[in-house]
Amino acid sequence: MTARQSGSGKDEDTPEVLDVPIGLDATGTRRETDSMGAIDVPADRYWGAQTQRSLIHFSIGDDRMPKAVYHAYGYVKKAAAILNGRAGRLPAWKGDLIEKVADEVIAGKLDDHFPLYVWQTGSGTQSNMNTNEVISNRAIQLVGGELGSKSPIHPNDHVNMGQSSNDTFPTAMHVAAVKAVHEHLLPSVQALQRAIEVKAEQWRDVVKIGRTHLEDAVPLTVGQEWSGYAHQLTQAVDRVTASAEGLYELAAGGTAVGTGLNAPPGFGEQIANKIAAATGYPFRTAENKFAAQGGLDAMASASSGLRALAVPLMKIANDIRWLASGPRCGLGELILPANEPGSSIMPGKVNPTQCEAMVMVCLQVLSEDAAVAFAASQGNFELNAMRPVVINNFLHAATILTDACANLRQYCIEGAQLHRDQIDSYVDRSLMLVTALSPVIGYDKASVIAHKADEEGTTLREAALDSGSISAEDFDRIANPAAMARPPHRSP
Amino acid sequence: MTARQSGSGKDEDTPEVLDVPIGLDATGTRRETDSMGAIDVPADRYWGAQTQRSLIHFSIGDDRMPKAVYHAYGYVKKAAAILNGRAGRLPAWKGDLIEKVADEVIAGKLDDHFPLYVWQTGSGTQSNMNTNEVISNRAIQLVGGELGSKSPIHPNDHVNMGQSSNDTFPTAMHVAAVKAVHEHLLPSVQALQRAIEVKAEQWRDVVKIGRTHLEDAVPLTVGQEWSGYAHQLTQAVDRVTASAEGLYELAAGGTAVGTGLNAPPGFGEQIANKIAAATGYPFRTAENKFAAQGGLDAMASASSGLRALAVPLMKIANDIRWLASGPRCGLGELILPANEPGSSIMPGKVNPTQCEAMVMVCLQVLSEDAAVAFAASQGNFELNAMRPVVINNFLHAATILTDACANLRQYCIEGAQLHRDQIDSYVDRSLMLVTALSPVIGYDKASVIAHKADEEGTTLREAALDSGSISAEDFDRIANPAAMARPPHRSP
Amino acid sequence: MTARQSGSGKDEDTPEVLDVPIGLDATGTRRETDSMGAIDVPADRYWGAQTQRSLIHFSIGDDRMPKAVYHAYGYVKKAAAILNGRAGRLPAWKGDLIEKVADEVIAGKLDDHFPLYVWQTGSGTQSNMNTNEVISNRAIQLVGGELGSKSPIHPNDHVNMGQSSNDTFPTAMHVAAVKAVHEHLLPSVQALQRAIEVKAEQWRDVVKIGRTHLEDAVPLTVGQEWSGYAHQLTQAVDRVTASAEGLYELAAGGTAVGTGLNAPPGFGEQIANKIAAATGYPFRTAENKFAAQGGLDAMASASSGLRALAVPLMKIANDIRWLASGPRCGLGELILPANEPGSSIMPGKVNPTQCEAMVMVCLQVLSEDAAVAFAASQGNFELNAMRPVVINNFLHAATILTDACANLRQYCIEGAQLHRDQIDSYVDRSLMLVTALSPVIGYDKASVIAHKADEEGTTLREAALDSGSISAEDFDRIANPAAMARPPHRSP
Amino acid sequence: MTARQSGSGKDEDTPEVLDVPIGLDATGTRRETDSMGAIDVPADRYWGAQTQRSLIHFSIGDDRMPKAVYHAYGYVKKAAAILNGRAGRLPAWKGDLIEKVADEVIAGKLDDHFPLYVWQTGSGTQSNMNTNEVISNRAIQLVGGELGSKSPIHPNDHVNMGQSSNDTFPTAMHVAAVKAVHEHLLPSVQALQRAIEVKAEQWRDVVKIGRTHLEDAVPLTVGQEWSGYAHQLTQAVDRVTASAEGLYELAAGGTAVGTGLNAPPGFGEQIANKIAAATGYPFRTAENKFAAQGGLDAMASASSGLRALAVPLMKIANDIRWLASGPRCGLGELILPANEPGSSIMPGKVNPTQCEAMVMVCLQVLSEDAAVAFAASQGNFELNAMRPVVINNFLHAATILTDACANLRQYCIEGAQLHRDQIDSYVDRSLMLVTALSPVIGYDKASVIAHKADEEGTTLREAALDSGSISAEDFDRIANPAAMARPPHRSP
Repeated sequence: MTARQSGSGKDEDTPEVLDVPIGLDATGTRRETDSMGAIDVPADRYWGAQTQRSLIHFSIGDDRMPKAVYHAYGYVKKAAAILNGRAGRLPAWKGDLIEKVADEVIAGKLDDHFPLYVWQTGSGTQSNMNTNEVISNRAIQLVGGELGSKSPIHPNDHVNMGQSSNDTFPTAMHVAAVKAVHEHLLPSVQALQRAIEVKAEQWRDVVKIGRTHLEDAVPLTVGQEWSGYAHQLTQAVDRVTASAEGLYELAAGGTAVGTGLNAPPGFGEQIANKIAAATGYPFRTAENKFAAQGGLDAMASASSGLRALAVPLMKIANDIRWLASGPRCGLGELILPANEPGSSIMPGKVNPTQCEAMVMVCLQVLSEDAAVAFAASQGNFELNAMRPVVINNFLHAATILTDACANLRQYCIEGAQLHRDQIDSYVDRSLMLVTALSPVIGYDKASVIAHKADEEGTTLREAALDSGSISAEDFDRIANPAAMARPPHRSP
Repeated sequence: MTARQSGSGKDEDTPEVLDVPIGLDATGTRRETDSMGAIDVPADRYWGAQTQRSLIHFSIGDDRMPKAVYHAYGYVKKAAAILNGRAGRLPAWKGDLIEKVADEVIAGKLDDHFPLYVWQTGSGTQSNMNTNEVISNRAIQLVGGELGSKSPIHPNDHVNMGQSSNDTFPTAMHVAAVKAVHEHLLPSVQALQRAIEVKAEQWRDVVKIGRTHLEDAVPLTVGQEWSGYAHQLTQAVDRVTASAEGLYELAAGGTAVGTGLNAPPGFGEQIANKIAAATGYPFRTAENKFAAQGGLDAMASASSGLRALAVPLMKIANDIRWLASGPRCGLGELILPANEPGSSIMPGKVNPTQCEAMVMVCLQVLSEDAAVAFAASQGNFELNAMRPVVINNFLHAATILTDACANLRQYCIEGAQLHRDQIDSYVDRSLMLVTALSPVIGYDKASVIAHKADEEGTTLREAALDSGSISAEDFDRIANPAAMARPPHRSP
Repeated sequence: MTARQSGSGKDEDTPEVLDVPIGLDATGTRRETDSMGAIDVPADRYWGAQTQRSLIHFSIGDDRMPKAVYHAYGYVKKAAAILNGRAGRLPAWKGDLIEKVADEVIAGKLDDHFPLYVWQTGSGTQSNMNTNEVISNRAIQLVGGELGSKSPIHPNDHVNMGQSSNDTFPTAMHVAAVKAVHEHLLPSVQALQRAIEVKAEQWRDVVKIGRTHLEDAVPLTVGQEWSGYAHQLTQAVDRVTASAEGLYELAAGGTAVGTGLNAPPGFGEQIANKIAAATGYPFRTAENKFAAQGGLDAMASASSGLRALAVPLMKIANDIRWLASGPRCGLGELILPANEPGSSIMPGKVNPTQCEAMVMVCLQVLSEDAAVAFAASQGNFELNAMRPVVINNFLHAATILTDACANLRQYCIEGAQLHRDQIDSYVDRSLMLVTALSPVIGYDKASVIAHKADEEGTTLREAALDSGSISAEDFDRIANPAAMARPPHRSP
Repeated sequence: MTARQSGSGKDEDTPEVLDVPIGLDATGTRRETDSMGAIDVPADRYWGAQTQRSLIHFSIGDDRMPKAVYHAYGYVKKAAAILNGRAGRLPAWKGDLIEKVADEVIAGKLDDHFPLYVWQTGSGTQSNMNTNEVISNRAIQLVGGELGSKSPIHPNDHVNMGQSSNDTFPTAMHVAAVKAVHEHLLPSVQALQRAIEVKAEQWRDVVKIGRTHLEDAVPLTVGQEWSGYAHQLTQAVDRVTASAEGLYELAAGGTAVGTGLNAPPGFGEQIANKIAAATGYPFRTAENKFAAQGGLDAMASASSGLRALAVPLMKIANDIRWLASGPRCGLGELILPANEPGSSIMPGKVNPTQCEAMVMVCLQVLSEDAAVAFAASQGNFELNAMRPVVINNFLHAATILTDACANLRQYCIEGAQLHRDQIDSYVDRSLMLVTALSPVIGYDKASVIAHKADEEGTTLREAALDSGSISAEDFDRIANPAAMARPPHRSP
C-alpha cells in the first residue's frame, strides 16, 4: 500500500474520535522516531523526534518561536486538511481529524507543546515539523492510537500533505504578522491617536510659544501642536496598513522551491482562500512563488511600517517629556500623572517614565527593523533561510509598540494637564512676536529690534516703540499672540 | 515707507530687465551684509552674507547640499513669486523678475553659486538663504542695480515673501526626492527588471537544480528562477512608488511653526498647485502643517522605499555572483561578461564585479536609510532640525541605486549566458528528485532511499530500484526533472 | 528620632536573625506603601509598592529585566551594607542583615521576586527599588517583623543608604556585563576557537583551491583556511576583552547626579573595592562620575566588542555552509554532521542549520549593538535615561553568542569532515595555477594561457605547453599546487 | 628573456631619469592595452586600460575612492620597489624609479590621475591597478619612453611585483585609516576636549541645578558638568586609539590568498617595516594573512572607535543646545555665539547650529559605522570583497568628525558664556534640595515636604519648616546648594 493509496480512503475504517481532553497523563519519556532514528521525548508532550532534536541542538538563549506563529500555522494545516480531505487525497475522516486538532492549535490550547527556539533552521522547518508532530500525536490520541506511531495520522504524509516548510512557514509568518498588526497594534495606536486628539481639542485655544531649533519662535496653540501629534499618528496608521499589504500574498502552494511540486493544481489559490475565509483578511496566493520563497521582501516592507510608527512616536514622547520637564527648572508647560516615586534618593521626584519607556521601545523597534531588512537581504537561490529571526523581530516589535502605546495613553496622555501660568508667561516674554512686524517694517528693522530687546533685557514692545518704526497701537494689534497663532484664514 | 507698502507697486518705477548672461565679471571680494553685519564674499559669486558665514562656520568634510535641492527650491521661489506678484503683494515686475531667475535656478544654470555644506543648520535655513541671496543678486544684476544692496529685490522681504525655511526647505526636499525617484530611479530599475524578464523568457525551459539552504533541492527552470528576480523588482517598484506617496504633501504655507503666520490665506494650497503644475506631479498642500514641519515622517517612509529596493537587489546580485562562481571550482551555472581583468596577480581571472558593486551599494543604502529614520525620530516641537542629513542620504541612496541598476543591467545581465553542460550535469546527479517519489511511496521510505544513495555514492535511480519500493518505469515517469519543474497546473 | 540617629545603633536592640527559608506562605494580597500611598501586592512576594506600581504601569511585552542585573545588584547592596555597617552609619546588625539577604540575591535565590519589565523608567530606578524592597522585606521576615513596615530595615534609608539608582544601576549593569562576558561568553568562544584550531591542525596538509570574489584562485591548504578562522576568533576574544575594559569603572558613589551627595567620603572607592574583592574582577571607582552617569559610553564600547565577535562569526558560519553546500550540486568540500532531517517535504535532505542559526544570531547581535549605541547617544544632562534597553540588549546579545558558539562547536565543527575527492578534483582542474607562471613568463603571457584554456576547455597544462612559453618540466615544477600553497618561507 | 630575468638587472642599460614635471601635454586620447585588448584613454592622464574600463563600467554616483587611499598605496609601492630593487628582483634603477614616482603619489602630486569610483570591484583591484598604471606611465615618461608600452616599467610585473590587490589594498586601507585617525581626527578631538576643559575650569564654582530624566535634581557646579563632557572625550580618545590598534597589522606579503605565493621570503615583514619607518607608525606584518585578507575585522573595530566618539559627542552637543535653549522660553543657562542669522522669517533668531551640525554628523557616523560592520561580515573564503565601501565610510566618518569637532570648538564652545541669573534662579527655586534632608529626617518625611511644596507652590524652605521636621537653622545649613554640589570629600 502506498502513501497515495492510503490517502484514497478505501482501505481504512473510519475510527471513532474520542472526547479526550488535551494533555498526556504520563511521566518520564516516550520513544519517537524520524529518518535519523529514535529519540526520547518527554512523555507528557505531544511533540516528536524532530522537535526533540531541535531542542537539543538549538538551545540558544531563551528566545522561543512566538506562539502566534503556531496559531497561524494552525490555519495553514486546517486549510490543507480540509482541501486534501474534500479532494479525496486524504480520507475524509483524516482531514476532519487534522482540522479538529488544527482548531485546537489556532485557539492556543496546545501552546505548551511548541517549545522551540527562534535560533533554529533558517527555513523554520523545525517549527513546521513541531506543528506536524503535535497535530499527528494529538490526532492519534483522539482516535485511541499509539503516540509516535505516525498512524493513522502521519506528520509528513498527512499533516504536511501538499506542503513544504518553504512555502508554509512564510505563509504562517504572514498570517501571524497580519493578525498582530490589525488585531493588536493598530487598535492600540488608534486609541492613542484619539486620546491625543481629545487633548488637542481640549487645548485648542491655549496660545503657547512655538519652538524651533529648541529656540523661542512664534506662537501657536497647544491644540495645534497636539493636532500635529495626532496627525502624525493618523498617517503612521496609514503607513503601517499600506506597508503590510504585501503580507496578504501567501507562498503556500509553492512547496519546496516554488514550483508547487507534490501539490495538486490550484492548491495555492485554495489554501489562500480558505485562510482568508477563516481569518477574515484578504489573503491571496502569491503571484510569483519564486519571489515569495526566495525573498522576504513583504516582511521587510511590513517591518518598515512598524518603523514608520516608531519614528513619530519617539518624537512625540520626547516632546512630551521635554514639555513636562521641571517642575521648576525645565520648560514646565505640561504636568504628567505621577504614577510612581521617581527616585530612590531624591524624595518627591516625579519622572516622565512612560515617555522614557516609549523612547526605549522606539529605538528598539528601529534596530529590530534593521535586523529584519538585513536578514531579508540575505536570501540565496530558492530560499531565504533567515525566516525565524525575521518573524521574531517583527512580532516582538509589534508587541512592544502595541503595549507601549496603550500604556502611554492610559498612564500619561489621558491624565496630562497644562501648566497654564508657565505657558502664558513664556508667550508674554518671547521676543519672536517680532516676526509679525516683519511684513510691515521689513526683516532688517525687525531684526534690530529683536537683538536690542535681547541685549538690553527689555520687552519686545519697549524695544519696538523705542525704535520708532512702529506705533504702540500698531504693535499691539500686530504682535498679538492669539492672532499670530491663528491667522484668520487657517482652520485647524 | 514700509515693506508692505513697497510691495504695493505704487511708488517704484518698473525697471528694464537687461539681457545679461549669468556670471559676474569681477575679481577679489565684494561686501555683503546681513543682520550680523558686513562680510566679504567672492566678487564672482552671487551669494550674500549668510551664505558666506555658513561656508566659514560649516566647513565640514566635502559633502555639499545636493544641487537637486536648489533646483527644487527654484520651483518654490517661482511659485511664491508668481502668487505674490499676481496678488499685488509684490509689484508685478518684481514677481516676474524673481520668476525669471527662479527659472535659471531650476535649469541648473546657477549651480556654481550654491556651495553650502550638508552639515549646516538643521533647518536648511542657510540653503534657503543661499537661494534667496543668489536670486536677489542675480535679479539686481538683471536690472542694473548694485549687488548686495538688496534693492530692488530683497532676499528676505521679496524672494522669501510669505515663506520660512521651516516650510520651504521640506517642500524643496519633497520636490527633489520625487524627481529623483520618478525621473531617475524608477526608470533605471524598470529597465533592469525588463532585462531580467527577457532572460527569464529566454531561459524559460532550461531545467536546473533548485537550491534551498544552499543545498540541492528539487528542480525548477532557470526561467522560473529569474522570473522570481523580475517579480521581486516589479514589487519593489510598487513599494518605492507607494512609499513615496507622502512626498506629494508639501509644507509650504506653514511658515515658521506651521500656523502660516505672515503668509496670505490659501498660500499653501496655491503654492502646491503651482508646483504641481510646473513639475507634473500631484503635489498638494500638507493637511497638517505641524506634523509636516515637526516631523520627517514622509521622508522616512520614502527612504524605506529605497530600502525595499535594496533588499531584493542584494539578494539578486548575490545569487548571480554565486551562480557564476567558478569557472571550474564553483557553481558555474552562469557566465558573466568579462568586462575587465580581475586580478593584478592572477592572470586571466574574471570576477563578478558588477554584482559586488551592487551589493556594496545595497548595504550602503540600508545604512543610509537607517540614518534617515534615526534623524526623522529626532525632531523637537515645531521643527525637526535634522533635515540636511536626511535629504542628503535620501538623494545619495537614490542616485547610487539608479546608477548601479543601470550598470548591472548593461554590463552584467544583458550579456549573461548559461553554462548548459554544468546545469544539466547538476540535474542528473541530484538526489532530491526523490521528493517526487514521496507522495507515492511515503516520506519515510523516500528518506531511506536518499540517504542510501548519498552514503553509497550511487545514483538516486539505482538506490530507488534497489529498495524495491518502486519500479523502473514508475521511477522514470515520476522522477522526471522537467515534469517536476513544471507541474501541469502551474503556469509561469 | 531621626533617620541618622536610627543609624547610630544606640537606640535599638539587636534582634535575633531567624532561620526562615525563603518564601512567603501567604495567599491573596498584602498592603504596601510608598510616598504615593498604599497598594496591594501579592502576599507571596517580597516586593513592595514601587515594584507593584511598575508592574502595572509598564506591562509592555514580555521582556523582563535580566536576572543577572539583580544578581549584580546584590553585590552593590552587599558592599554598601558592609561599609555602612562598619562605619556606624547603620547599626552593625542591620548591615549584617542586609548583607545576608544580599547574598541570597547574588545566589539567585530570590529571582522569583524580581518581576519587572525592561521597558520601565530609563534610570532603572524601579529595579533598584525592587531590589531594595525585596531585601527590606526579606530582612524583616528574618527578624520576625511585619512585612511592608519598612522596619527595622527601610528600603530607602537603609538598603539604599548612600546610593541612588543613578549611580548603582550603572554599577550593576557593569558588574552583570563583566560576568556575562568573562564567565560565559569568552569561555564559549575560546572553546570554539580551539575546536577550529584542532581542525586546522588536522587538515594542515590538505591542499585545496582558494577562492576570491567566489572565483577560483590559487591553492592553499584547508589548514591554512581554518587557521584564518581560528585567528579571527583569537583576535575577537582580544577585542571583546579590550572593549569591555571600561566596564571596570563603577559609578557607585556618585549618587543622584555624580556629586556624591548623601554618600560618605570615599564611598565610591570603597564600594568598588568591595565589589572587586567579592567578584574577583578589577573593578574601580569611575574617575569622573558625571561622565559615568550622564553617559553610557563604556557600555557602548563593550557592546562593540560583541559586534567584533559577531562579524567574524558570520563570515566563518557563511564559509562553512557554503563549503558544505551540495551534496552534489554545490561546492561540496565539507561534510557537516546531520543532526536532524532537513526538510518536511524533501526526504533525506540535510541542511547547515547550525550555521544558519549562527548567522541569524550574528545579525541579531549587530542590530542589538546598534540599539545600544543609539541609546547611549541619547543621554541628557546628568543622566542617560536609556539604561534598561542598553543592558537588556547587551546581555541578550552576549547570551545568544555564548550559546550559539557552544552549539556550533558541538554540533557542527567537531564533527565536520572533508570531502577529499571533491577538494582534490577542484585543485586539478583550476586554471589559476597559472599565477605561479607569472613571475617567470610575465603577467601578460600568463593571461593569454589562462584565457585560452578557459575558452577551449582544456587543462592549464595543455594550454601552457601549447603556448610555447614554458617547458613541461618547468610547468610541473612551478605549477605545483602543494608548493604554491606553502611557499618554502611561509610557516603556518 | 623571462620576466624574472628582466629583474636581474644584467641585460638592460640603465636609462637616464629626466627632469620632467608632472603632467601630460597632449589632447585627445591615447591607446592603452590590457589582457582584454585595447582601449582609448584621455591623452592627458597617466592611467591605463584597466582604469579606463573601470571608469566606464562603474560610473555609479559621484563617490570617488578617497585620495588618502592612493597616498597610502604610495607607501606600499615604494616599500615594494625598494625591497625588490635591493634584492635584485628588479634592476636597481627600476626600483629607484618606481620609488621616485611613489613619492609623488604619496605627496598627492598625482591625485588628478586617480579618478575611480568607490563602487567598483570589491577587492579594490581597480584602484591598485590605477596606481600601478599611473606609476608605470609616469616612470616611463621620466625615462623618455612610450606611454602605454609598459616598458621599461610594467604595471603588473614591476610595480605590482610580489603583490596582489588582495594583500595590498587592505594594507593601503590600514595606512590611510591610521593616518586619518592619528594625524587629523585625534588632534581635533583633543583640541575640543581641551576647550571644554578650559570651560570646566572657568566655571568650576558656579552652582547650578542638576537634571535627571530632564527633571530638576540636586545641584552640581557647571564645572562638574563640563568636566563630565571633557572626561567623556578623554575616554573617547582612548577608545579611538585602542580600537585602531588592529590597523597596525598589514596584510602585505599574503598576495592572492594569504599564502604569499609569488612573494619572496620575508616580504611581508620587510614591507611592514619599511612602511613603519616611512610613516612613523608601528606597522607590522599581520600574524595570520588568511584572517587579514578573508576578513575586515580590524577595520570594523577601528570603525567602532569612531562610533565611540560619536556617541558622547552627540550627548554633549545635545546638552549644549538644550542648555542654550531660549533665550526666554527655554532652559537658558548658556549663551552660544551668534554666528549667523537663524531664520529667514523670524528676525533676530539665533540657533544652536553648530550643535545641530554635530548631531547630524554623529548620527551619520553611527550609520556609516553600521555599514562597515555589515560589510565586514560579508566576506567569503579567502577574500572579503567589500573593501571599497568599508574604507570609504571609514575615511568619510573620520573626516566629518574631525571637521565637526574643530568647528564646534571654534564657533561654539570657545565663545560660550553662562547666563548666571538664570542659573542662580533655578537653584533658588528647585525643590530637590530636599534630598539633603533625607539622611537626617528620612526619605519618607522628605517626600512629604517636597510634594507639599510642589502642590502648594511654596518654597522648599517654607514647606520644610511647616512640617516641623527640621529647624530653620538646620535647613539652611543642610539644604545649601554649594555644599550639596561639592561634598567636602569630593575633589574634581
